[in-house]
Amino acid sequence: MLKLFYALNTCALASHIALEEAQAQYEAVRLDFSKSDQNKPEYLAINPKARVPALITDRGILTETPAILAYIAQSYPQSGLAPIADTYAFARAQAFNSYLCSTVHVAHAHGRRGKRWADDPVAISDMQRKVPETVGACFELIEREMLAGPWVMGGEYSICDPYLFTIARWLEGDTVDIARFPKVQDHRNRMAERATVKKVLAVQLAQNY
Amino acid sequence: MLKLFYALNTCALASHIALEEAQAQYEAVRLDFSKSDQNKPEYLAINPKARVPALITDRGILTETPAILAYIAQSYPQSGLAPIADTYAFARAQAFNSYLCSTVHVAHAHGRRGKRWADDPVAISDMQRKVPETVGACFELIEREMLAGPWVMGGEYSICDPYLFTIARWLEGDTVDIARFPKVQDHRNRMAERATVKKVLAVQLAQNY
Repeated sequence: MLKLFYALNTCALASHIALEEAQAQYEAVRLDFSKSDQNKPEYLAINPKARVPALITDRGILTETPAILAYIAQSYPQSGLAPIADTYAFARAQAFNSYLCSTVHVAHAHGRRGKRWADDPVAISDMQRKVPETVGACFELIEREMLAGPWVMGGEYSICDPYLFTIARWLEGDTVDIARFPKVQDHRNRMAERATVKKVLAVQLAQNY
Repeated sequence: MLKLFYALNTCALASHIALEEAQAQYEAVRLDFSKSDQNKPEYLAINPKARVPALITDRGILTETPAILAYIAQSYPQSGLAPIADTYAFARAQAFNSYLCSTVHVAHAHGRRGKRWADDPVAISDMQRKVPETVGACFELIEREMLAGPWVMGGEYSICDPYLFTIARWLEGDTVDIARFPKVQDHRNRMAERATVKKVLAVQLAQNY
């Protein structure tokens, strides 16, 4: 059975939702970042990057959200979570997810994880100050150019949707007003109404010991 | 015909090599970043992110290196550039490329593109200072955990190889000694000997007007 390692309020939520929507048999295992679970030897043996998500499969371990999402879509083709038979459309979905992981998530991370890239408190503080600008610019581009609507890829729900939802949940924490992005706001609201999303969020909060 | 937009010394080299190895019919178009070509209206109409690579296909435009690499592998299955029939192995390749784009490339970018994430000169300078440490840590992980050898995925050459080669070429500029990573060094040397890689580098340099 698949086993997903996640932590609260992280990008692992996207993979958790996708597993639920694929109706996969899986177990979700919570790491407590406040206890530095991700740096403990038993987890480093699973993911030496000390990050979530990690997905244990019967073949081995997968990391990185875009790869895990594509794996779920391809492993459960009946779920229709990606246009896997259309190479171009699949690449468009992958490009969207790649932008989220390499640009949007990174812009956000400078607010809380600045120590990854600098040590000087002046630098850490300046990075934090700039987050609303950089994250805001990313979402302007998503709103204007990328979110076809009603779902990211257009009429068909896909693995891009739980990933956008996950990162859009961070906007308030980044002090970016989601009302600037009506399509993103509408998307987040519709995502929050899905039974699968409600179920996953309830599970993650219930495990919040 | 496919049209690839690239700039010298950027991650677009990976897609350029992959197109050559797939024996695709394509045209390579060079942007001159010193003339800010990427910010001109005619290029922003192609890629509003103002980045390279961008690949024009007969269906539309693709961006983001991991997505373009997977698209090339899937569009030219006879090239054997990815284990596209094996969902797990394909996801492993995607995870490697996702790590390069979201973590390794980002660590490197703090040396030259710090203004993406901060404004204070103290912050920019502190980010630059830390690059050898962060990029070095990424390559330690690649050396120890990810590069199966002789190619990234093991015995089979794949879309991970030109991407690793591309980013490993930046090590000297980041003042990270590649000799610390014997497998990466061996990989880079073997990549440099490939006829396809020699051809692409010669084309890019010849277009260096």
